[in-house]
Amino acid sequence: MPPDRIERPTLALSMGDPGGIGPEVLVKALSNPEISRKVRLRVHGVASSMHQAADRAGIEPFWWSVDRESPLISATLSHDVVLVSAEKRDDPFPARDNRRAGELSFQFVEDAIRDARRAEDDPLRAHAIVTAPISKHAWALAGKAKFPGHTELLASRFGVKRHAMMFVADELRVVLVTGHVPLADLRNRITIGRVFDAIDLGHSACVRQGIGRPRVAVCGLNPHAGEAGLLGDEETRLIEPAIQLATDAGIDARGPFPGDTIFSRAVRGEFDLVVAMYHDQGLIPVKLLAFDRAVNTTLGLPVVRTSPDHGTAFDIAGRNLANPSSMRAAIILAAQLAGSPAPASPHSAT
Amino acid sequence: MPPDRIERPTLALSMGDPGGIGPEVLVKALSNPEISRKVRLRVHGVASSMHQAADRAGIEPFWWSVDRESPLISATLSHDVVLVSAEKRDDPFPARDNRRAGELSFQFVEDAIRDARRAEDDPLRAHAIVTAPISKHAWALAGKAKFPGHTELLASRFGVKRHAMMFVADELRVVLVTGHVPLADLRNRITIGRVFDAIDLGHSACVRQGIGRPRVAVCGLNPHAGEAGLLGDEETRLIEPAIQLATDAGIDARGPFPGDTIFSRAVRGEFDLVVAMYHDQGLIPVKLLAFDRAVNTTLGLPVVRTSPDHGTAFDIAGRNLANPSSMRAAIILAAQLAGSPAPASPHSAT
Repeated sequence: MPPDRIERPTLALSMGDPGGIGPEVLVKALSNPEISRKVRLRVHGVASSMHQAADRAGIEPFWWSVDRESPLISATLSHDVVLVSAEKRDDPFPARDNRRAGELSFQFVEDAIRDARRAEDDPLRAHAIVTAPISKHAWALAGKAKFPGHTELLASRFGVKRHAMMFVADELRVVLVTGHVPLADLRNRITIGRVFDAIDLGHSACVRQGIGRPRVAVCGLNPHAGEAGLLGDEETRLIEPAIQLATDAGIDARGPFPGDTIFSRAVRGEFDLVVAMYHDQGLIPVKLLAFDRAVNTTLGLPVVRTSPDHGTAFDIAGRNLANPSSMRAAIILAAQLAGSPAPASPHSAT
Repeated sequence: MPPDRIERPTLALSMGDPGGIGPEVLVKALSNPEISRKVRLRVHGVASSMHQAADRAGIEPFWWSVDRESPLISATLSHDVVLVSAEKRDDPFPARDNRRAGELSFQFVEDAIRDARRAEDDPLRAHAIVTAPISKHAWALAGKAKFPGHTELLASRFGVKRHAMMFVADELRVVLVTGHVPLADLRNRITIGRVFDAIDLGHSACVRQGIGRPRVAVCGLNPHAGEAGLLGDEETRLIEPAIQLATDAGIDARGPFPGDTIFSRAVRGEFDLVVAMYHDQGLIPVKLLAFDRAVNTTLGLPVVRTSPDHGTAFDIAGRNLANPSSMRAAIILAAQLAGSPAPASPHSAT
């Protein structure tokens, strides 16, 4: 354990769309005393939505509620779980895209970001952000179409250009070089720099998770990793140079490996991290191995950020059917990553 | 069981590259009496390679050997396992690409095809072909570069234009719309007709395997299956029309589904077959679920053809390290598919 490990980090959680399953998975995940023993939890949301979800799940309210505008927020610091409630209302939010829900879920994220940006010695400072799912359509209805999702909002507010998504599914860690990109556009989106960034950011995240010398496997883009140039040239033109840069920087990065065999090798313990070139290449194995338990984390931010790997699920919202496993795993990972400060990257060290 | 089921089909097996692991996995898989009870087996290969592999594995020769040019081949019909040997030689084949090995492994496949094309009443007729791995570089050295692999040779000899690869990994069946295609070329290779063919051929193969009304899931090409056109238009332009054609033809085909979630749904029993748009999309889940046991079968040929889902593995050839599970699964699937004749496609029936 590093000497300056934060003993009990504070997590700022955003409730997500109050008409989705966010309130329900939060209530279910946070009600586990194992979790609140390890971290302090501050949820930005709406009190009535939390209460409705708890009622349906048969869970006694276990949190301390405080009004968002109240001057007494700092008086809540002794409580394990605090709900900072944005508005009073009685009627439930509809389980569909809705302007007001979009405004609120946007504001919850902004509030969590504000907690994370507080001064180091501010007792309200959060050490990590956990976001419940939002609806990008609701954000658009609320006039926030500029931000298609959490990642873009976080990158903008923290002024970060270099970031990547990592998915954790039990023992498999996967970083994506590209995200929501049509397959036909991949050719223009994969660059030596982007591949290197994904390797480097993923490597640092593994170190934060306590892996001494992470072994990083890098996927090819084409079938059989291009088969020595017969099936595409991105491997030799872009991916191999990026691996070389990473190796030069002291990272144990190898590849490019054929996408169809590298994930089983990683799962069997040969690698700590797989760098995938595109969405389905990385997420097919993640969701096959850990459908309900996969966690998403944004790398490259100055703060830890995790989220469950599912959406608002309007189709089952308000019916007490949602599985909190992924939210629980997101909270545990956030606590783990926030528990120790990010070490200096081996190649940025002088 | 259909009334005209073939009780004990004959399989023609090609040894593959004699310097690879083909002879070894054949010796190991065929030595199981459970297998030779269900089928008659005729291996086209080289006797010395089989003997060397058996020696190393400590297996007593269990097959009847006959010279390829011998007039006595038809006298071998009473034997469960017959090796038709192409040449006499004492020194082992090198475990690397080699012209003579290329010539021979090409000839083994031609011999197996000849067995499959014999008249129905010819006692030497084979009902299925099982191919051990060849080296495409060795084929090129032997002047056969026109055929990059088995599939192209089989399609040419049987005069077939419409074919597809299906992979079977335990309970998961996956058909590919495209094969060894660079990712950047996919856009030009995916057509309504090719997607329909993959659905249709995969559906027929499921029926042959005894599934009454196969439930077929079709993947999208882009992340989130294109997210209603936001992330690519191939879903609406090509895949949806192909699904509609299949539905019109009476096939229970649904989709396009996001690639990252559909495989777990299929594995959990929701679908019998997944149609994948490209190599890694389909093979990542297959190899993650059944690394050593996956089987490859060519659909669209007038004869059943299966093969193990691995290569010549020159790096471990001749060392008694090869795992015969995939070859065993390939033989069992061939026997299963050859056991009953192909039923008429529901939509081609009048």
